[in-house]
Amino acid sequence: MLDPVEKLKEFIRHQSVSTDPAFRAGMAGAQKFVADLLGSLGFAVEVVPTNLHPIVLARRGGDPSWPHVIIYGHYDVQPAEPLELWKTPAFEPTIVGNRLFGRGAADNKGPLMTNIAAVAQALAANPSLPLRITFLVEGEEEMGSPSFPKFLESHAAIFREADLLYLSDTGIPNENQVVITCGLRGLALLDVQVTGPKSDLHSGLHGGVLRNPIQALAEILATLHTPDGRVNVPGFYDDVRDVHPWEREQLKKLGADENAYAQFLGIDTFYPTPGFTPFESLRFQPTLEFNGIGGGYQGQGTKTVIPSKAFAKISCRLVANQNPDRIKRLVMDAIRARTPSGVKVDFVDQHKGEPYLVVPPDRSNTPKDQSPVLARAFRATDQAVTEIWGRPPLYLREGGSIPIIADIKAKTGLDSVMFGLFLPEDNLHAPNESFNLDVMKKGVATTRRVLEAIARG
Amino acid sequence: MLDPVEKLKEFIRHQSVSTDPAFRAGMAGAQKFVADLLGSLGFAVEVVPTNLHPIVLARRGGDPSWPHVIIYGHYDVQPAEPLELWKTPAFEPTIVGNRLFGRGAADNKGPLMTNIAAVAQALAANPSLPLRITFLVEGEEEMGSPSFPKFLESHAAIFREADLLYLSDTGIPNENQVVITCGLRGLALLDVQVTGPKSDLHSGLHGGVLRNPIQALAEILATLHTPDGRVNVPGFYDDVRDVHPWEREQLKKLGADENAYAQFLGIDTFYPTPGFTPFESLRFQPTLEFNGIGGGYQGQGTKTVIPSKAFAKISCRLVANQNPDRIKRLVMDAIRARTPSGVKVDFVDQHKGEPYLVVPPDRSNTPKDQSPVLARAFRATDQAVTEIWGRPPLYLREGGSIPIIADIKAKTGLDSVMFGLFLPEDNLHAPNESFNLDVMKKGVATTRRVLEAIARG
Repeated sequence: MLDPVEKLKEFIRHQSVSTDPAFRAGMAGAQKFVADLLGSLGFAVEVVPTNLHPIVLARRGGDPSWPHVIIYGHYDVQPAEPLELWKTPAFEPTIVGNRLFGRGAADNKGPLMTNIAAVAQALAANPSLPLRITFLVEGEEEMGSPSFPKFLESHAAIFREADLLYLSDTGIPNENQVVITCGLRGLALLDVQVTGPKSDLHSGLHGGVLRNPIQALAEILATLHTPDGRVNVPGFYDDVRDVHPWEREQLKKLGADENAYAQFLGIDTFYPTPGFTPFESLRFQPTLEFNGIGGGYQGQGTKTVIPSKAFAKISCRLVANQNPDRIKRLVMDAIRARTPSGVKVDFVDQHKGEPYLVVPPDRSNTPKDQSPVLARAFRATDQAVTEIWGRPPLYLREGGSIPIIADIKAKTGLDSVMFGLFLPEDNLHAPNESFNLDVMKKGVATTRRVLEAIARG
Repeated sequence: MLDPVEKLKEFIRHQSVSTDPAFRAGMAGAQKFVADLLGSLGFAVEVVPTNLHPIVLARRGGDPSWPHVIIYGHYDVQPAEPLELWKTPAFEPTIVGNRLFGRGAADNKGPLMTNIAAVAQALAANPSLPLRITFLVEGEEEMGSPSFPKFLESHAAIFREADLLYLSDTGIPNENQVVITCGLRGLALLDVQVTGPKSDLHSGLHGGVLRNPIQALAEILATLHTPDGRVNVPGFYDDVRDVHPWEREQLKKLGADENAYAQFLGIDTFYPTPGFTPFESLRFQPTLEFNGIGGGYQGQGTKTVIPSKAFAKISCRLVANQNPDRIKRLVMDAIRARTPSGVKVDFVDQHKGEPYLVVPPDRSNTPKDQSPVLARAFRATDQAVTEIWGRPPLYLREGGSIPIIADIKAKTGLDSVMFGLFLPEDNLHAPNESFNLDVMKKGVATTRRVLEAIARG
């Protein structure tokens, strides 16, 4: 029988840092490890090449009437640097207490292994389980999944035909409280560039006759929020739907502490969207943030120049029902309308991502629109979590983005059940990453019951 | 005989960027070049150490009854960045047509070399010229001359005893019209830094709960001007005096063409202080400009970060009777009062310079206060310019600043004759700086006659 902890150790030893070409061997090793493991469980494994790191696609077919679950995960990890801050070697899995330390232990090798072990147990108990399962394990998640859109296009049929995507790549607040993530924010990114004089000018020789592009940029950016913190772009909130009362209720049950959060951020005042607590604002409301700004002289000392250009990098986080292209257009229109005389603006279109929201069946206003298998999966997860963890899961939106989840939904209509497994103290993307083995054990049991319940119908 | 063009090429090759420690060798080379050149002309050269870059002091003494002229210049240059915009290498002097290209060609190596060549010619023609001459060539002008105040204190006797300071570090509108600069703007410089969260944050996980420091900075900067272009800082204009009517008259004679100027700048609309033409605004009115801004991610593509900090570099140009320390205080007070909640501001005090105004003898309301040698120098310059350039000079204020001119006046009472030599198209402080060699030739002849006339009495 597959021992998930031993297998996870083996998985972590493959140094699969996707962004760094020096780790090519580790990437190949991790990819082969996943393919071999799934093959050994009876899956038909296909390694789909991409421009960068292959995608492992492993299928357990069956009668077309059986439900079909795609289980997502990724075999790549973040760089382990700074290595000197690790208390145990980053790629030598080490158990201390109930934790397994090592890069990727929680993101995403541990949670993926949890779900693989659950499948192994379910199939060992019932080799003829009436469930089609496809594992989709990519190797570019930590780079923003650049090859995924092309894969999604060429393999759209699998997603169209499946009933749901199931994954464990989101977080939970503590080891007793599971969260099912129901919403992710989308993204609309662009750069704005303001051009004034045709070249940099001496601020003494020419200062006082023309509008400085930094001044113009500041004046434009300053119009993009109201003093109380709303985004001041006409139409920006038009498509934002009211939050369901149950969402606010669920969030209250999370019991997050504002003072602790302010201390963690190092700020003395929050600045949420008016009418929302900070925790609500970051989950339920869109933003317009400035990620970078630049222009003129930025070195030590002084250089008395009026620069020709200045720019800012803008990103909007979007919530369900907002359209990234429309938001980009609105922001550009607002900026154009507010550009003062004497300068001109240009834009650089950057990437985008759709927002995502899935409403659990018993909370939906339009339950009949949901696939019965998806509804069954949500109910099964709720029940399994309640029994195994001692309390029901919370259904929450996240402030962050997993672009492929929204992309799959937008392109194929497939929804996801995001069963969170990592903890705040797991140190994702940081030194001394670890995975809680008690969480893993409960996770295996949970996913096994969910899959069995889906199969049972 | 000294060939000023060849010598200027040699001078430019010394990469004397004073603000950047990486250019230490170029600074030392340029300083030695000046000292050796003046030594070769028979001057007694003293290299006066400072905390940073030495001052070259080269004296030609003589009978104490002889007039004494101090000729000022600087051997340091602005940084050459952005290098990719230069059509010829910044530090490889290149002649194209009647122009010599290279960083510092016009500011100030070319004009300084013009006056050195004039002295060389005058002394070659009459080795016993009854004129005491002191060259004062500093290496920190582009940094705001931080060591000069101390030097001025220790060497005050030279300035008290001299009759005038003569320099060419100001501009002329075209190669046929000389300007004697009578006024310079002062400077008050500071950086403002806005700090929000204690470290950079993920804009998805935390976006929408706190005030982004770039947003706060933009909102602060946007308050510092009124929509019509006045500086919006309480008290800023309190000490600005009315302009003399002859000053507006002289400026009209300049016949500057607003359309041509707009085209030169590459703008379609001016933005002068209300009530002033663009040409008046830049000479008679103070400014508050942003010389640089920075924060967050500035590279290609995107990084969805909320930065911990953002900053801007601010410089105010001041006109006669404004006090730099008072202006800095007013600007900081305004910024502090307008800083929104959730962020804090800090300031880095940069350098400053007093504004300066000298009234030519025949236009002064109090001519008896002026030294007879200074009056003679003004009249000799007027006459030499009229003869050599074909029309009399104009007496104008400049938009730029030479803080030490005002400092010398304030501490020792010594006034300056500022014989302008660089042209708008010389691209000072910008890529593709150059110096017009025809202007240089006429400049040499002019300065020579001025010195000879002062000596003649």
